[in-house]
Amino acid sequence: MDTSLPTPSPLALEGVRAAIGRIPLENISTLARDWFGDPSIIALWFGEGDLAAPPFIGEAMARAVTAGHVFYTHQNGIPELRAALATYQSGLAARPIGPERVTVTTSGMHALMMAVLLTAGPGDNIVVVDPVWPNMGGAARLVGAEVRSVRMDPGPAGWSLDLDKLAGAMDARTRLVFFASPGNPTGAMVPIETQREMLAMCRARGVWLVADEVYNRMVFAVNAAPTILDHADPEDRLIVVNSFSKSWAMTGWRLGWMVHPSSLGPTLAMTTQYTNSGVATFIQHAGVAAVTEGERFVAHMRAYCEQGMAIACDVLERSSRVRMGPRPRAGMYAFFEVDGMPDSSAACIEILEKTRVGIAPGIFFGPGSESFLRICVCRSPDSLAEAMGRLEPLFR
Amino acid sequence: MDTSLPTPSPLALEGVRAAIGRIPLENISTLARDWFGDPSIIALWFGEGDLAAPPFIGEAMARAVTAGHVFYTHQNGIPELRAALATYQSGLAARPIGPERVTVTTSGMHALMMAVLLTAGPGDNIVVVDPVWPNMGGAARLVGAEVRSVRMDPGPAGWSLDLDKLAGAMDARTRLVFFASPGNPTGAMVPIETQREMLAMCRARGVWLVADEVYNRMVFAVNAAPTILDHADPEDRLIVVNSFSKSWAMTGWRLGWMVHPSSLGPTLAMTTQYTNSGVATFIQHAGVAAVTEGERFVAHMRAYCEQGMAIACDVLERSSRVRMGPRPRAGMYAFFEVDGMPDSSAACIEILEKTRVGIAPGIFFGPGSESFLRICVCRSPDSLAEAMGRLEPLFR
Repeated sequence: MDTSLPTPSPLALEGVRAAIGRIPLENISTLARDWFGDPSIIALWFGEGDLAAPPFIGEAMARAVTAGHVFYTHQNGIPELRAALATYQSGLAARPIGPERVTVTTSGMHALMMAVLLTAGPGDNIVVVDPVWPNMGGAARLVGAEVRSVRMDPGPAGWSLDLDKLAGAMDARTRLVFFASPGNPTGAMVPIETQREMLAMCRARGVWLVADEVYNRMVFAVNAAPTILDHADPEDRLIVVNSFSKSWAMTGWRLGWMVHPSSLGPTLAMTTQYTNSGVATFIQHAGVAAVTEGERFVAHMRAYCEQGMAIACDVLERSSRVRMGPRPRAGMYAFFEVDGMPDSSAACIEILEKTRVGIAPGIFFGPGSESFLRICVCRSPDSLAEAMGRLEPLFR
Repeated sequence: MDTSLPTPSPLALEGVRAAIGRIPLENISTLARDWFGDPSIIALWFGEGDLAAPPFIGEAMARAVTAGHVFYTHQNGIPELRAALATYQSGLAARPIGPERVTVTTSGMHALMMAVLLTAGPGDNIVVVDPVWPNMGGAARLVGAEVRSVRMDPGPAGWSLDLDKLAGAMDARTRLVFFASPGNPTGAMVPIETQREMLAMCRARGVWLVADEVYNRMVFAVNAAPTILDHADPEDRLIVVNSFSKSWAMTGWRLGWMVHPSSLGPTLAMTTQYTNSGVATFIQHAGVAAVTEGERFVAHMRAYCEQGMAIACDVLERSSRVRMGPRPRAGMYAFFEVDGMPDSSAACIEILEKTRVGIAPGIFFGPGSESFLRICVCRSPDSLAEAMGRLEPLFR
């Protein structure tokens, strides 16, 4: 056996699968990477506000550590959190959801990753309703699946989904349809009748429907967005993904969950085991505190976003070069175009350099959104007004 | 468009990919699932001791939460932790490792998952040196890759790897070779000369070598196991995986890292983004505390395991029906056979019922290990002596 290690190595990156090599490395995180913690930047590029989770959540976590909840635990999540989430989901919906249909995940992203890993592979495709947060497409590309875009249409009444376009995008290799309601970046809600039709289309084809309900509490006029869970059979091929990141301001805590058919529970436990072996036990206890004692904070977050939306839209609507539909009635974002700024990536870099305000380029949110810009409005009134004041001269 | 939802759903599980459906759902976690927290059980089935991480680690986490480290952050890990891990790795090795070669992960498992996701897909295979912790195989099966076993041979001097068998298992579709040293469940160390030859074989074929060094500090006679990093080029297709779970008793904290070629850093950031979007920020600060202030605890863990190994092996070696090689000089496990117990799964259930001691069946650790049993020895002397006292009559 030759032990002399004579062969010089080629660049290791060349040893990565070709499908991986084709995934763009740029995303909002890479855009912001050099600016984390820079106090001169007003960072409106992430789906993240400037509120930290309320102290009682951190205190619950600290108590859990002290109590010794620091060992391996259940791969579907600790029973206390599954039960708390089942009660929470059932309280927001017309049909009860049992704990056997809840799996705790290391973020909403991990839930989406597991959904795509279980259902799609090379040669398959998933259909994504956009403009949309790019990460579901990223996960699908990681497993080698094709991502097909069905763009919602902007109109005087806001963004709407053409179901014929959706049907036209699906074929025999379509394994999953993904949508978010309320949407990111649009704040648009897909009417529940449309969601029912999407479920019917998926049912007829044996295709999975994955609904991102991460913004379901950030609806300004009601307590929660309507959910397709109320119109589905427990064994429908339906996965509803949620997260603690928005409603409880827990972005950095990496905690989410999914509602799934109970038959999928053991498979999800196995998939959790072999992807990251589950969520830190004490963070799950923090989640129990959030979901059982956090309603006042959720109401505060909703009002905070509504207030921010008003501050941002007041400026955008009086800016002559800004094109934007009706004000979003949900979510954390303003999503708009500016005449004379057709290239959103270049525009965001120019805006950052000129104003020290970080905003996200539409190019990340799907084909057709290349000229759009996204601003996160979940920000203190003073800070947001300062940011909008810096932006206004560029949009005038 | 039909909105009547007339079609009854088949069982949702049937909508999962065929390759996923073939992955066994049983693992140590499912075996133990019904017994979490049951004080009547002495749980020796996991790779987990009964020591919690020292309080200073939890205190560092609590301080990070209070300081506001609760937002999104770098996908390769916070700079402080990458730097601390680079210093730590460099201190254990002959060649320095820069922070650009370190990526923080949500457990060692997540590092393995990313390694296999980046390198292997359907039609590819990975070669796993076993007896080994089953999770790398699980991750490979999730992405549709074939898992090939090359079993180390037990002998009077312990477990040894036959490189001709390894070469024979590799073919043109082999993308990755995985081994652990010190091993789980064997505690066996692959001699560094053998590791060099494995690297040479992988280099010659353009294959990735993934080394699991999770037990590298649990070597009884030395400060750390030798590492293949000392014999590799920085751009070799080599990934070394480690975890906070064993050295700092942080199993439930879900924190690990990988050392990788620097060219892979941006791709790993992207893969992190689309798998679970990274590790909770405050847990990374806990990791900084562990790795910079934890050496006394690591030494304690090592002595604790060595003591446990003596307690367990004293009993096993005087049990006439037990067949075991020389005492492991590393790791957290005793791995052995018992005459008359050929079926490890049945034996573990019988043992659990008769003695309330939970041990792990060899069937999970690779072909050829079906008749083996694994005991975790990282346990207080009293508790471990009690467990061994209950087991001894069954092994006599």
